[in-house]
Amino acid sequence: MSGNQDLLQRSLRSVWHPCTQMKHHERYPLVPIARGEGAWLFDSEGKGYLDAVSSWWVNLFGHNQPVIKEAIKAQLDQLEHVMLAGFTHEPVVALSEQLSALTGLGHAFYGSDGASATEIALKMSFHYWRNIGQPEKTKFISLQNSYHGETLGALSVTDVAIFKDTYAPLILQSAQMPSPDSRLAEAGESAEAYALRCAEALEAYVAEHHATLAAFIIEPLVQGAAGMAMYHPVYLQRAREVCSRYQVHLIADEIAVGFGRTGTLFACEQAGEKVSEIADFICLSKGITGGYLPLSVVLTTDDVYQAFYHDQTVKGFLHSHSYTGNPLACSAALATLQLFAASDVLGQNRETAQTLLSAVEHYDFAMQHVRQRGMITAFEVVTQNPQFARDCYAAALKHGLLLRPIGNTVYWMPPYCLTQSDQQHLVEATRAAVMESM
Amino acid sequence: MSGNQDLLQRSLRSVWHPCTQMKHHERYPLVPIARGEGAWLFDSEGKGYLDAVSSWWVNLFGHNQPVIKEAIKAQLDQLEHVMLAGFTHEPVVALSEQLSALTGLGHAFYGSDGASATEIALKMSFHYWRNIGQPEKTKFISLQNSYHGETLGALSVTDVAIFKDTYAPLILQSAQMPSPDSRLAEAGESAEAYALRCAEALEAYVAEHHATLAAFIIEPLVQGAAGMAMYHPVYLQRAREVCSRYQVHLIADEIAVGFGRTGTLFACEQAGEKVSEIADFICLSKGITGGYLPLSVVLTTDDVYQAFYHDQTVKGFLHSHSYTGNPLACSAALATLQLFAASDVLGQNRETAQTLLSAVEHYDFAMQHVRQRGMITAFEVVTQNPQFARDCYAAALKHGLLLRPIGNTVYWMPPYCLTQSDQQHLVEATRAAVMESM
Repeated sequence: MSGNQDLLQRSLRSVWHPCTQMKHHERYPLVPIARGEGAWLFDSEGKGYLDAVSSWWVNLFGHNQPVIKEAIKAQLDQLEHVMLAGFTHEPVVALSEQLSALTGLGHAFYGSDGASATEIALKMSFHYWRNIGQPEKTKFISLQNSYHGETLGALSVTDVAIFKDTYAPLILQSAQMPSPDSRLAEAGESAEAYALRCAEALEAYVAEHHATLAAFIIEPLVQGAAGMAMYHPVYLQRAREVCSRYQVHLIADEIAVGFGRTGTLFACEQAGEKVSEIADFICLSKGITGGYLPLSVVLTTDDVYQAFYHDQTVKGFLHSHSYTGNPLACSAALATLQLFAASDVLGQNRETAQTLLSAVEHYDFAMQHVRQRGMITAFEVVTQNPQFARDCYAAALKHGLLLRPIGNTVYWMPPYCLTQSDQQHLVEATRAAVMESM
Repeated sequence: MSGNQDLLQRSLRSVWHPCTQMKHHERYPLVPIARGEGAWLFDSEGKGYLDAVSSWWVNLFGHNQPVIKEAIKAQLDQLEHVMLAGFTHEPVVALSEQLSALTGLGHAFYGSDGASATEIALKMSFHYWRNIGQPEKTKFISLQNSYHGETLGALSVTDVAIFKDTYAPLILQSAQMPSPDSRLAEAGESAEAYALRCAEALEAYVAEHHATLAAFIIEPLVQGAAGMAMYHPVYLQRAREVCSRYQVHLIADEIAVGFGRTGTLFACEQAGEKVSEIADFICLSKGITGGYLPLSVVLTTDDVYQAFYHDQTVKGFLHSHSYTGNPLACSAALATLQLFAASDVLGQNRETAQTLLSAVEHYDFAMQHVRQRGMITAFEVVTQNPQFARDCYAAALKHGLLLRPIGNTVYWMPPYCLTQSDQQHLVEATRAAVMESM
């Protein structure tokens, strides 16, 4: 048995893979990866796969990235970890300061999973209203088709049926607002006009229910799990106005869209000068460490922070995770921010994105809704194959490409280090995989 | 301003520390740590603090541990991360196999935060009953004073008022069973007799409610956040019998007590030959990486796994976290298991524990309930000082010791690498700190 075959059989016996009906692996391949380099992953027999989804949207500057790698190694020689209750360290302080300067939100609370960041933001918002004497503000709203994680609190604001419906008896109900997803605009209606119409629906709901509403949580500009649903930034501006008018927090979940994915460092910057003009809370994870280590953080305002600052212990935010502010993960995050500062990453990405969009527009198969926001490019393939997503995934692997369609939506969210030949391979292998699975 | 003073002021401005009323830092010190070595943490001016709580119960073999450090560095040169949906890699497979062999539970599902492990186990148990046609089994029970994490699902089975009460409107109700905490035994009643009495109460509840019960989640042998409440292993045996008799899952939350803390590799082994004789699910985190990196895992039975194995996608367990099975964290975990295999760690710990217990028994201040389970030693200080915990914490810091009492409970849960002089310092500095804060 080859090294690949052996490892994948062992994996199927011992590892319960996430987001997977394991029986599907009887038919669809599981791929054992031995190493990475730039945008590529390699199996133990040396076959390469271009990582067009950045390994679930986490990798920014490629695999085996020297600056991030050396930063973690250097931190390993200093301090691997210390508890963050009562103690602190340079990496977590420097990271918090830099994120604060970049977002305008000055207080950083850490976890490790993205879902934990959602839970932290929801609990903080709820607790804020209680601390300032409005304990009736206990409810949350989110967008239709939104994804904010799958722990039970996060699921209460997630609206993807396949992740949520099974667990309904365990989940608090929350209301979902119409999504400004531009695919849902009526014929002849612009993305902006449709976003404004959705903002009116939001205002109508909030005007009626604000007395019991704590927060509105939203994925800014792109709803990833909804199938890379993209929408006009005006929605964020109006949502901010509505939230301010009716005293409801706005939580920006930039776990997937942060760190340059949408063309700006944070997606909210396309609706306001700084994140703090749009959001009361921002949730970050995934790309924060460049795809190296689990780390999540919630940043919030001084107003929120001060509401917890009190002689009474119970008014404090006593939430905790063991590895909060892990120095190794923080050092990876600092190296990631250093890479953004060292060159015009966003400018280079604009050129890459333009090349990719042009290539998609020249595809000769049936497709709809070609769209792009920064380094996220997506389109819907017109096909009757009910297994399109899995067939296309398997076909792409054969062509040396990691592509993971969501339903009929094919998308690219690649690392930022794509060379010209990488771009060419991405375009050609995607075309071949789509054509073979329509 | 000294380097220490500067960093701690910067930290108070930018970092929102976990499990902390931040205003208390006006009076109680925040400590900036620059490096670690063995059982010691050092600030930027070189002052050392013996880490008697293993940095929130995560560190096993000391700070700057060469074997774990080199394993992470080696993995950094191979593969830092790849998504675990559809893909796999040697570190996650090897770790899953080894954990399976050690626990008898053969399928490993990963997250990064301990709370996420609790959420995964609860969701899996609930979904199992639904998949096998018993959808009415939707409820969970736990012990009084239990701690299983602070995301909203985990909070629903946590029973520590200061973490939970504030969020009551967001939390599903669950029932709490009498804790077998031996401190609660009546005068003249043995720990075993009291544990059996609590098991009878458990059975009475389960007999009445089993039709709607999915799982009983429990911290085996030691309830950490309850103040190192310890109980007789017979309770776990009876709980297993009750759960089997009435078809209720038993979830062993060994996030804090796993990896040798209680004297056996897993606490359940003091009630049965292997974890699988006691538990249907085990949750692991904290010590799993030796205190280096965030990683959590839920291991379960083939029976549970098979209930999700089906042609229908929706019967699968679709839960996911971005960094599931992170290769760097898995390599730290493999190095940690290697350290257990390389020498008689548990035997050496027994000697250390005996020395520590003797020392406590010779303390000359007023105390109660001296107790020990493996490398966890605890006692209650008899004092009228309502601020005892914080005063003792601050006094210990002055003496070069990280001690973090829970109420009037002083406890040690140190790394396993304590030298004889470390032990002496631990005993003497603890005595001084207690005497100064009574």
